[in-house]
Amino acid sequence: MTEAAQLSGKAGEGNAPAPSSGGAVARGLLEDLAAASRILVDQGVFDAAGHFSMRHPAHPERFLMSRSLAPALVSADDIMEFDLAGEACDARGRNGFIERFIHSEVYRRRPDVMAVAHSHSASVIPFGLTGTPMRAMYHNAAFIAAGVDVFDIRDKFGTTDIVINTPAKGAALAEVLGDNSVALLRAHGMIVVGPDVPNTVFRAIFTEVNARLQLQATMLGGPIAALDRDEGRLADAVNIATVGRSWDLWKGRVTR
Amino acid sequence: MTEAAQLSGKAGEGNAPAPSSGGAVARGLLEDLAAASRILVDQGVFDAAGHFSMRHPAHPERFLMSRSLAPALVSADDIMEFDLAGEACDARGRNGFIERFIHSEVYRRRPDVMAVAHSHSASVIPFGLTGTPMRAMYHNAAFIAAGVDVFDIRDKFGTTDIVINTPAKGAALAEVLGDNSVALLRAHGMIVVGPDVPNTVFRAIFTEVNARLQLQATMLGGPIAALDRDEGRLADAVNIATVGRSWDLWKGRVTR
Amino acid sequence: MTEAAQLSGKAGEGNAPAPSSGGAVARGLLEDLAAASRILVDQGVFDAAGHFSMRHPAHPERFLMSRSLAPALVSADDIMEFDLAGEACDARGRNGFIERFIHSEVYRRRPDVMAVAHSHSASVIPFGLTGTPMRAMYHNAAFIAAGVDVFDIRDKFGTTDIVINTPAKGAALAEVLGDNSVALLRAHGMIVVGPDVPNTVFRAIFTEVNARLQLQATMLGGPIAALDRDEGRLADAVNIATVGRSWDLWKGRVTR
Amino acid sequence: MTEAAQLSGKAGEGNAPAPSSGGAVARGLLEDLAAASRILVDQGVFDAAGHFSMRHPAHPERFLMSRSLAPALVSADDIMEFDLAGEACDARGRNGFIERFIHSEVYRRRPDVMAVAHSHSASVIPFGLTGTPMRAMYHNAAFIAAGVDVFDIRDKFGTTDIVINTPAKGAALAEVLGDNSVALLRAHGMIVVGPDVPNTVFRAIFTEVNARLQLQATMLGGPIAALDRDEGRLADAVNIATVGRSWDLWKGRVTR
Repeated sequence: MTEAAQLSGKAGEGNAPAPSSGGAVARGLLEDLAAASRILVDQGVFDAAGHFSMRHPAHPERFLMSRSLAPALVSADDIMEFDLAGEACDARGRNGFIERFIHSEVYRRRPDVMAVAHSHSASVIPFGLTGTPMRAMYHNAAFIAAGVDVFDIRDKFGTTDIVINTPAKGAALAEVLGDNSVALLRAHGMIVVGPDVPNTVFRAIFTEVNARLQLQATMLGGPIAALDRDEGRLADAVNIATVGRSWDLWKGRVTR
Repeated sequence: MTEAAQLSGKAGEGNAPAPSSGGAVARGLLEDLAAASRILVDQGVFDAAGHFSMRHPAHPERFLMSRSLAPALVSADDIMEFDLAGEACDARGRNGFIERFIHSEVYRRRPDVMAVAHSHSASVIPFGLTGTPMRAMYHNAAFIAAGVDVFDIRDKFGTTDIVINTPAKGAALAEVLGDNSVALLRAHGMIVVGPDVPNTVFRAIFTEVNARLQLQATMLGGPIAALDRDEGRLADAVNIATVGRSWDLWKGRVTR
Repeated sequence: MTEAAQLSGKAGEGNAPAPSSGGAVARGLLEDLAAASRILVDQGVFDAAGHFSMRHPAHPERFLMSRSLAPALVSADDIMEFDLAGEACDARGRNGFIERFIHSEVYRRRPDVMAVAHSHSASVIPFGLTGTPMRAMYHNAAFIAAGVDVFDIRDKFGTTDIVINTPAKGAALAEVLGDNSVALLRAHGMIVVGPDVPNTVFRAIFTEVNARLQLQATMLGGPIAALDRDEGRLADAVNIATVGRSWDLWKGRVTR
Repeated sequence: MTEAAQLSGKAGEGNAPAPSSGGAVARGLLEDLAAASRILVDQGVFDAAGHFSMRHPAHPERFLMSRSLAPALVSADDIMEFDLAGEACDARGRNGFIERFIHSEVYRRRPDVMAVAHSHSASVIPFGLTGTPMRAMYHNAAFIAAGVDVFDIRDKFGTTDIVINTPAKGAALAEVLGDNSVALLRAHGMIVVGPDVPNTVFRAIFTEVNARLQLQATMLGGPIAALDRDEGRLADAVNIATVGRSWDLWKGRVTR
């Protein structure tokens, strides 16, 4: 793919045939996926940028993601389908996000992941810049207790424009993510993954909150009695089981 | 009670007969109790979680509390009645919060307490993690001058999922609360108690504000001339006598 | 005056005749005075508490101030008139704020002052507790360059409930204010004075903003190149001359 | 120009003939220019003050800027035209901002600049006071990697009222700006410049955000892996190419 094509976000319009679709997806799932973007704006995680995807429910090598659009404006009709090379199955003239390779490469590497969020969430940026290890300040952020590593694009790609606009850059980021739920991107933002749309929204929100709380705890001084790895694993199971109460509330706020 | 029953929050549906009711409660009291939850959302103390209860006005061994529901959505029709074992008097298929044992055990230990709030209020979390003693930064937080201790669930229960989902855990928390108005839960949140619904709402709000102010005062450096215990006792009496002005304003904001 | 009368805020209902009125006040002035309270709520300086007064335009020994009411709810019809002893000219069953002695004693000591605000404005509290001298971070807060002192009620009155509920306490506070525009009250809040209602609103807002900025500058470390006394005097004159643009905007936001 | 004329903001009403106009400007451009002011209020960069201008599209020695008005209220009909001496081409009784010399002198010195914003944006003030060098915390603030210098009006003008109310002061500020996109004004605010209206709005917003993030990163401690100059240059090109998505969203929020 040329640099120009990457920047414009054009996909699936080369000489190669477009990849096959994983099949029609229930309208309710597409609406939930679109709502995820709007929720993350409403909750202060996304600003004018940020994107959210889910793996195709019937085809593990396809994923669903909005066309390039401010996340506050995403509706079900904006959802496109891509293969794991980031090629659109049916672009119909729509442009995908130039950073969709974040998503494709995470789905490729992590079969357990069913949804991915990428944001420039303000409070996490300082952690990516200073290398301060993120720790789980409370049960809502239990998934952080497993660890959060920082991806520095300079390590493999030298001086760049910071954008994850190739499969190779997406794969390098997915490698830093490893088996965790969150990875930070130096001078850029974060990615968050989870077992479904609601839990990934939940994790994105509480990664942002956790960053604020950890900064505050740091400023109070002294050791921080964060959740340890075992507490985090146990508390995360409760979050996963009870996410519906939060999801319903958040979705209600962004649905007429 | 089994772990599964605890997680689902089912109550009063075992073989034992449901406990007797303390009697019908005036609609206005139920509406105030429901408004308390919505006020604490509006004022930034509750998020998608948090719960608020009051002791039954006619039966000191019963208390009233919403079914398991996001606090922003609570109305008078959602209020359930429980005994001090956390069993519902008339569940009618509704689920109580799995953490209602916080409330039951505080009512058991503290006959003077007429209302209890539990939140994951952001600004207090760092104080529970670092053990920095909370102090009363101003008259609105006078009740803090009596002291605020931290409950670390590890001390008695080892590695857990952090949830206060048994009477034993609730009792251990109530013991840490002692005669104070506030206790912090490490990596979890806080509980606040008071002599009635409006004052408990007031205290929950100003515990959150006080945490922010104490962090700021700490960052300025040097000794902090907080309210001492005697000033706190005197100023708290003024708060209790004048809470109506705040309550009316807050309630008006969450009532059509 | 008895303690009970002070707490209830009753005024002008003893045996002594009520003081004479300074005369009818133009409706527009009363509406501006009421708007001042609502503006300070809208701008985050007042919460459920806070009060604002102006000197009577025709009688320098009378002042005008809302009855005891949440400032968000104040309208022109809530304005009462008081003499400099804090006695109501025409109470008609209404209660004044128990802290109206802050206002009466400032008007007594400072003939140049035409309006007074008292708030529990969050960001200034830490400065009153730590004794960190407030300095003028920018031209909007130019009036701070003249100096801001802290009133600690313990110095003259020992252990109290913090409330300024007597003429003696008000006078002691006015003495600490001296010739400045702002004084802090330890563990309580601030008072702000000015040459008219719009400028006093302006100063109350930018005292709060300035406190936030000074905390941030302190956290960056190193010396702070604040406005010096002469720069402050010159910049304050510009603020006074141009306050109309801000006032019109702020008033428009709280007026239907 | 007399001091009184400067303070009142009167322009183009002396004996000299008004400068000639650069010609009519498309309504859509004027509406975008007016929207820029309202966007910067909506995004928390402007408060009751702040002004935004663009160079005349057909005449490089003219620029367009609102009459003196709170930026939240600016519409296309409020736009005036000025020459590079700050004289109005057609005042029609309207007053320009007294600080329009900031804009005129930047346009004079920097032929590449097509739009200028001046704000008292809160988070940047502490950087102007402490001399902490601003650095680019993430790609959105890439334009900061080129450097940000601080203008201290005392250096050339001694004790002043801080206002940039003469061509000489504007020129001194433009000199400190140099070839950068941002300059800070000690104890006053910032100026931001760019190649068009949307990108200048973008830069003003992310200068404010970047200041908050840099303060937080500083508080975490340790070295900050900010964007270097080359990364900044590359990432800025992406921002410029993709600003439309943000602009459309922001404009939609402030346009009925």
